[in-house]
Amino acid sequence: MPKLPPRYALGLDFGTNSVRALLADIRNGREVATSVFAYPTGKAGIVLDARRPDLARQHPADYLRGIEVVVRRVLAQARKKDRSFRPDRVVGIGVDTTGSTPIPVDKDGMPLCFDKKFARNPNAMAWLWKDHTGFAEAAEITALAAREHPEYLAKCGGTYSSEWFFSKILHCLRVDPAVFAAAASWVECCDWIPAALVGETRPDRLKRSRCAAGHKAMFNAAWDGLPAAEFLAKLDPKLGDLRPRLYDRTWTVETVAGGLSPAWAQALGLPEETPVAVGAFDAHLGAVGSGIVPGTLVKIVGTSTCDIGVWPSDKPLADIPGLCGIVDGSVLPGFFGLEAGQSAVGDIFNWFVDVLQPGGRGAGSHEALTAGAARLKPGQSGLLALDWNNGNRTILVDQRLTGLLVGQTLHTQPAEIYRALIEATAFGARTIIERLRAYGVQIDRVINCGGIAEKNPLVMRIYADVIGLEMKVARSSQTCALGSAIAGAVAAGAAAGGHQDFASAQAAMCGVKARSYKPDPAKRAVYDELYPLYKALHDAFGTREAGGSLFPVMKSLLAIRDRVLAGK
Amino acid sequence: MPKLPPRYALGLDFGTNSVRALLADIRNGREVATSVFAYPTGKAGIVLDARRPDLARQHPADYLRGIEVVVRRVLAQARKKDRSFRPDRVVGIGVDTTGSTPIPVDKDGMPLCFDKKFARNPNAMAWLWKDHTGFAEAAEITALAAREHPEYLAKCGGTYSSEWFFSKILHCLRVDPAVFAAAASWVECCDWIPAALVGETRPDRLKRSRCAAGHKAMFNAAWDGLPAAEFLAKLDPKLGDLRPRLYDRTWTVETVAGGLSPAWAQALGLPEETPVAVGAFDAHLGAVGSGIVPGTLVKIVGTSTCDIGVWPSDKPLADIPGLCGIVDGSVLPGFFGLEAGQSAVGDIFNWFVDVLQPGGRGAGSHEALTAGAARLKPGQSGLLALDWNNGNRTILVDQRLTGLLVGQTLHTQPAEIYRALIEATAFGARTIIERLRAYGVQIDRVINCGGIAEKNPLVMRIYADVIGLEMKVARSSQTCALGSAIAGAVAAGAAAGGHQDFASAQAAMCGVKARSYKPDPAKRAVYDELYPLYKALHDAFGTREAGGSLFPVMKSLLAIRDRVLAGK
Repeated sequence: MPKLPPRYALGLDFGTNSVRALLADIRNGREVATSVFAYPTGKAGIVLDARRPDLARQHPADYLRGIEVVVRRVLAQARKKDRSFRPDRVVGIGVDTTGSTPIPVDKDGMPLCFDKKFARNPNAMAWLWKDHTGFAEAAEITALAAREHPEYLAKCGGTYSSEWFFSKILHCLRVDPAVFAAAASWVECCDWIPAALVGETRPDRLKRSRCAAGHKAMFNAAWDGLPAAEFLAKLDPKLGDLRPRLYDRTWTVETVAGGLSPAWAQALGLPEETPVAVGAFDAHLGAVGSGIVPGTLVKIVGTSTCDIGVWPSDKPLADIPGLCGIVDGSVLPGFFGLEAGQSAVGDIFNWFVDVLQPGGRGAGSHEALTAGAARLKPGQSGLLALDWNNGNRTILVDQRLTGLLVGQTLHTQPAEIYRALIEATAFGARTIIERLRAYGVQIDRVINCGGIAEKNPLVMRIYADVIGLEMKVARSSQTCALGSAIAGAVAAGAAAGGHQDFASAQAAMCGVKARSYKPDPAKRAVYDELYPLYKALHDAFGTREAGGSLFPVMKSLLAIRDRVLAGK
Repeated sequence: MPKLPPRYALGLDFGTNSVRALLADIRNGREVATSVFAYPTGKAGIVLDARRPDLARQHPADYLRGIEVVVRRVLAQARKKDRSFRPDRVVGIGVDTTGSTPIPVDKDGMPLCFDKKFARNPNAMAWLWKDHTGFAEAAEITALAAREHPEYLAKCGGTYSSEWFFSKILHCLRVDPAVFAAAASWVECCDWIPAALVGETRPDRLKRSRCAAGHKAMFNAAWDGLPAAEFLAKLDPKLGDLRPRLYDRTWTVETVAGGLSPAWAQALGLPEETPVAVGAFDAHLGAVGSGIVPGTLVKIVGTSTCDIGVWPSDKPLADIPGLCGIVDGSVLPGFFGLEAGQSAVGDIFNWFVDVLQPGGRGAGSHEALTAGAARLKPGQSGLLALDWNNGNRTILVDQRLTGLLVGQTLHTQPAEIYRALIEATAFGARTIIERLRAYGVQIDRVINCGGIAEKNPLVMRIYADVIGLEMKVARSSQTCALGSAIAGAVAAGAAAGGHQDFASAQAAMCGVKARSYKPDPAKRAVYDELYPLYKALHDAFGTREAGGSLFPVMKSLLAIRDRVLAGK
């Protein structure tokens, strides 16, 4: 095999608080240079409103400023560190962002907050994924779809989320009609950034991401793209009127959105017309960067988890109840992307350590509790927990669920609870895999990435023992940015020195760490006894199937809480 | 009404760690003098065995030494403080102790540990109430009785406890046949102390307490006293052989066990032949000292609770499932004594503060958490707990149950959990009252006593709001000792300057504090919504009635835990 000449791809990963650039050698995935820019606007890059804790917005100017800073820095680093590096050897650029993070734009595709009139209006900014102000609208959309278009819901787990595209737009229409009226269209962050880079932001011309459209906007070829105008009009006539100003086509990440515009080429120090790939969500390109293939589940384990699988588009696949999304081409072209997740994982451990602060006198750090938990055997504490402190994203798709701990005695120790919380998230992970398997999606390999996967071997060991599969950890610590770089390399194509397809790009650029975590048969056997008990709690509190007497408990507690807090 | 001459009664209260004497003015209940003696043997008066955490014994010599110390002290105090006091104005002595705390004795009634041969053998000492070494024997007795004599169980809640008389004796027979063989009989602590004071400890002559016999030894007039010899022989022939060396008669607390012996009279500085009442358990005489009458529930709220009610013996009363005991005359002569309780109350709060140590930097004291909990409204936290960290004594009579907390979010605060734990014990208390009411026992007044009732107004307020009844607190801080003093005054009789009956003694000597806690209608309304949710959890995890799918959860967790801990 002839030695390939040095070639590079640039990945831009727009996270919740910062943007990261990663320059990777496309022959081997080597991470040549990386740089992070924290968004300057708001608190840790998020515009908040003390009176509305559900509100979370971002200023798109932060994105643009961030690109210039991080790209210039990585190019400078690369020049220093890698003799063979030259900017014209950057074959392509890929982009991933959070989502659904829609931005209201004018007819030229400029975010409305760029207009002086709306400059300080959060409704004219990017509506960050974690903004939940549209929770009532989400319920409204779910109810209407359940009645009139259940097929819309079947592809997104049965419930339309407050985090998603139309919930946010409808909420804007309700609370800020001026912004809604001024918006020529709404554009996902992951569409808007590539569009800006290639200098074509006009909403009727920019390329929309299949990933965002399919997972968050109910876009599907089975019903002619987005939900019908009549459907949207029933929510509000003005939402129906918006429908033609949105989009009818979507693209997958191997598509070139365009070439780097002259202005950006100059600003960044890269050649004009460098191919920029169509964008996608961070988790989906993170799965690519982790080396996803059919049969592999990629788990991005952080404060919450995102679990991504793929399934060949030409093989039959049923709707899988409770799965957040099944979208053709949302991860890899030619495959259905399957998205699942747990609403809280690291956040539950952080709650225990930071809010409950157990153990007194400094004995309650993550390190100390992990050490204590590691000394315990499965089953030894008599404890069992549900991992629902932030609701359940998959498979129950229900934010109105809460945590549960059972088995406490007068001797129960903090480290025992900490371990029970880790185990709960492992049981939750197993529940997702069992649901996939029940609908024919075989999972025989798990690749983990994210902070917890890298930093906490105990969590990985417990996951291996509970799930009964070897837990591998992605080689890259920046799988999302690496996945974007891969998309850039594939979009460029082999002829331009990139990769001809994702298979060859992933084979060259992805890998797993040498250290993996194999199930211990004895421990696994105990967890196989505990899992049915977890499932009994899961079904009793989370579904109406198990007799139903406990299904109202968590919901009633929340309803009473909300009423009491509202002073009613 | 002529003014009564000053008269006094002495109450001796033998607790888990110490003995207390209380000298009370029988005209008004005024507590003239009190003194406490901590048992010197073992750890805090309890002989333990590091290899057997269930073991808890006491050395009866501690009781005798304690009597001399505390009685001499209170008489000396009284002489100083009360000009009208003279030892010959002490009309009677009453005794209460923990139980079931049986002692193996020789033919003269001397504890076997007084014999050099057994001097250091814990099996030859008093088997303290909280000794659970006989848990397997308890299960065996329950199983046999369920098959052959269900009526035995009907009076003690359906389950024979490891804390009780025959479980301990059978366990001794199994593990230490030499001690069992040497025992001419077994005598409850509350029988042995009055017997010692009157100088008649011979097991065939001393007066056995109705209270101890009825609540802990399945003694009942309906089946000729103790369980049949054939029944006991099926557990072990030697246990059957013991039956005739136990007892056929029992006495209630108004009975004189005898007059103070010359030796004790001299040792204590009291007249010979001062009447000594038959003994009873602490909680039962505590109820007397709190002013129990029909319609009143006395709650002794401490690390656990004991709830005592009475019901006229001549009125029909069904067996009440789950009640630890229904015994004619166990509290007041002429009334059935009804005993219920919660296995842990203060112990749950102590677990949270001392073991879990939440809140960091000293914010997790009882005081700080109580202050935080007091700022919350009912229902505000969205939390709900079961109060089973030490099992459930009433109404489920099941030690193999554990704690549960539901409703946690990522924001749940320590003070919210603390309040939920208090509320859980309140819901548990309500469950007991509702069970009594369901079987026709009306409760329209609650008198609380014990450390928590006196020290934590928040607990009392929550109990009032959850139960929907005014919570009164007994005037005396030493209701058990006061109840014993009342028994001494009644046993002495009116002719000897005492009281003619309990009604007149209680009217004169008992009272409640001025401060009481009335239900707040708004708070009560919220708790009336939460209680059915508590009951749903209670029934789902604690009974087979609610579908049964969750009933095995706590038990399986404990079974797995025990197996893992045993290394199997």
